[in-house]
Amino acid sequence: MTQLEFAKNNIATGTVKKICRKEGLGITQLLKYIKEGKAVIPLNKNRRIEKPCAIGKGLSTKVNANIGTSTDKGTINDEIKKLKAAIKYGADAVMDLSVGGSLIRMRREVLKHSSVPVGTVPIYEVSVRAKGLKKDFLDFNIEDILAVLETQAKEGVDFFTIHAGVTKKSLRALSTQKRFLGVVSRGGAILAAWIKKHKKENPFFEYYDRILDIAYRYDVTLSLGDGLRPGSILDSTDPAQIEELRILGDLALRARKKNVQAMIEGPGHVPIEEIKQNVLLEKKLCRQAPFYVLGPLVTDVAAGYDHISASIGGALAAGYGADFLCYVTASEHLRHPSLSDVREAVVAAKIAAHAGDLAKGIKGAIKWDKEFTLARKKRDWKAQVKLSIDPDKANDYRRSSRPHLSDVCTMCGDYCSIRLMDECAKK
Amino acid sequence: MTQLEFAKNNIATGTVKKICRKEGLGITQLLKYIKEGKAVIPLNKNRRIEKPCAIGKGLSTKVNANIGTSTDKGTINDEIKKLKAAIKYGADAVMDLSVGGSLIRMRREVLKHSSVPVGTVPIYEVSVRAKGLKKDFLDFNIEDILAVLETQAKEGVDFFTIHAGVTKKSLRALSTQKRFLGVVSRGGAILAAWIKKHKKENPFFEYYDRILDIAYRYDVTLSLGDGLRPGSILDSTDPAQIEELRILGDLALRARKKNVQAMIEGPGHVPIEEIKQNVLLEKKLCRQAPFYVLGPLVTDVAAGYDHISASIGGALAAGYGADFLCYVTASEHLRHPSLSDVREAVVAAKIAAHAGDLAKGIKGAIKWDKEFTLARKKRDWKAQVKLSIDPDKANDYRRSSRPHLSDVCTMCGDYCSIRLMDECAKK
Repeated sequence: MTQLEFAKNNIATGTVKKICRKEGLGITQLLKYIKEGKAVIPLNKNRRIEKPCAIGKGLSTKVNANIGTSTDKGTINDEIKKLKAAIKYGADAVMDLSVGGSLIRMRREVLKHSSVPVGTVPIYEVSVRAKGLKKDFLDFNIEDILAVLETQAKEGVDFFTIHAGVTKKSLRALSTQKRFLGVVSRGGAILAAWIKKHKKENPFFEYYDRILDIAYRYDVTLSLGDGLRPGSILDSTDPAQIEELRILGDLALRARKKNVQAMIEGPGHVPIEEIKQNVLLEKKLCRQAPFYVLGPLVTDVAAGYDHISASIGGALAAGYGADFLCYVTASEHLRHPSLSDVREAVVAAKIAAHAGDLAKGIKGAIKWDKEFTLARKKRDWKAQVKLSIDPDKANDYRRSSRPHLSDVCTMCGDYCSIRLMDECAKK
Repeated sequence: MTQLEFAKNNIATGTVKKICRKEGLGITQLLKYIKEGKAVIPLNKNRRIEKPCAIGKGLSTKVNANIGTSTDKGTINDEIKKLKAAIKYGADAVMDLSVGGSLIRMRREVLKHSSVPVGTVPIYEVSVRAKGLKKDFLDFNIEDILAVLETQAKEGVDFFTIHAGVTKKSLRALSTQKRFLGVVSRGGAILAAWIKKHKKENPFFEYYDRILDIAYRYDVTLSLGDGLRPGSILDSTDPAQIEELRILGDLALRARKKNVQAMIEGPGHVPIEEIKQNVLLEKKLCRQAPFYVLGPLVTDVAAGYDHISASIGGALAAGYGADFLCYVTASEHLRHPSLSDVREAVVAAKIAAHAGDLAKGIKGAIKWDKEFTLARKKRDWKAQVKLSIDPDKANDYRRSSRPHLSDVCTMCGDYCSIRLMDECAKK
């Protein structure tokens, strides 16, 4: 049985119990959300991991870190270092988006080293295989796709991004309002090109039931990808994006009926004033399925600092109800990310997730701020460092600049306001 | 005449004209906003600067960078380097918050090297002088305060933060709801301690008219400080904060009547879900005076990354109508900031300001994103670097990781979606 089937039968699996303890959520409550499709547990039947998580209603906002080789950069060793850093600094899930080198070896290492759920975008392997075998990355058919899905599911991948919403129909919507930046999803672009070349419907859409069968057998959660997400705030919330979202909503419902867990991927590039509406639309059109947003970036001009732009958008989206934030690194749009880019991006996304949790009233979220505030009040530096979102960085900063008085920091020195008020109260 | 008097007489000064050209705003419009107290031009009569700015309604959101020595850290040379970096990366104003070493020499250098408006918190110099002369930093009176204000105004300081809202009454409000973290403003703490020690009313409040006289003579803009701003999201929007805000509203009105420009300082630490209400309250209680927010930080746990926490809060606040964002560095709460902390914090605040400008519909803000999007579409890397919020960083990233194909980046390599769609369109 899948987690969804267990939930439908009101059976709490060990994973459900573990998650409820961690989140401080009642078991009945979580089972209800899973049953209703409002929460998912991305966990392959064949995998045991130390840190499973649930994503969705009533749960703390989760963070995903993308790693993987490109055709230009990234060795398996380097990417595994990034994987470990991502998990160390708080990623709740990782996606292996490799398209360069040996995809199979890379995935094996990721699955071996990851204590958190692992996701992939199988169309990448399908394309890379086609290119290797037939010299054209678009030379694949549904059997090739199913073979890759089956292999990856058997290996233990916990969630698949599939771009089943890039259809003839949603592509037509692209022409109703001309975009500044067209299709920016790699998977979306591959499928759009495939549809054009083969003059056939997207196989992920056409053979969705067969994909569901594989997902069901291994309890792989489907992350319904937004292949038509806008790549510029000038294109945000346009007809093609919404048409695809509508299709994804239907597909999420079909998954649920077949006892397959599903979540919905979202943009991308969204200006602040449209984020609330984007979350609302997803929740309505996709029957409250968990919302997995990429950023969103609130401006296009922050290349080199897109982790910050994404943190703004992610915090807002989470506050309005988004459930899962995909980090964006400072390298996005410029280069393959470095190890330190990965760390900084995870932390930036964790800040956004936590700020969002405070806003959406996740039980216990404020406790962390309270403990930190009390440590700050006492000027207990050890506790402040320990409670910081990245204790290593807080520690480095603290150690790099020692104050004259041990209970303050070098920012204010003698004029530390908290110390001053304490002295004043004593008089 | 002050800028406010000129505006009341419908006279456009050279500075007004220059600002209107830069902002793409009509002269009549800006004069109207200044007249109504909705916008200010912080510029001392005695100073000529290359980059004056206006802050307030209809204008792009501005960014302030704090520099200055503490009693523990910071040489004048180091601080001037930070000043230059802050301006290079886009700060619209700087504040010299020095409390260590020679305050006079430091300020002279700042005024000499700053091409943007310079602000100070004169109570710091008052206290440091008192400590030097009388061994107690609280041993000062109104004459000492006025002497410092006069000196600094004569030297050319463009705006003063004065904590005139920390009064016996607003301090009483502190006891109506116990705070987790008390008073965290340095100026606020000094004045609260002074009031307790001397059992007298805050001299900035009691002798406000005399302060206005000095501000008027030099056209120093008053930045009415929030000495009682909460320093933890657990204390946000509490009775003391709002009582002080109400007082600041009255003081802003009194300034306007005396032809003195005024803006209002705001928190601090505010969870996402209270930011809109904070902006609204300021605009209502302070008769639409420009709102100058410090961050705000949306969580207390991001020590080491407070520039990101502040960027989230600042973007939201700006989107709802805040006019001026004070940067917060990654070092905040941990140490005196480094040069690179200053640069990163300025850029983080600029991202927030621009995201806010997009949300509040500032004329021309979207043009930047449009140009960037078009450069991205063309995969014109030179233009992308040039248009980036920090071209130096974008350039460093780009150069550090060269792709195999010159028109993509190493993130996606051969699988660049934009390139793929272009190739596809050609077929």
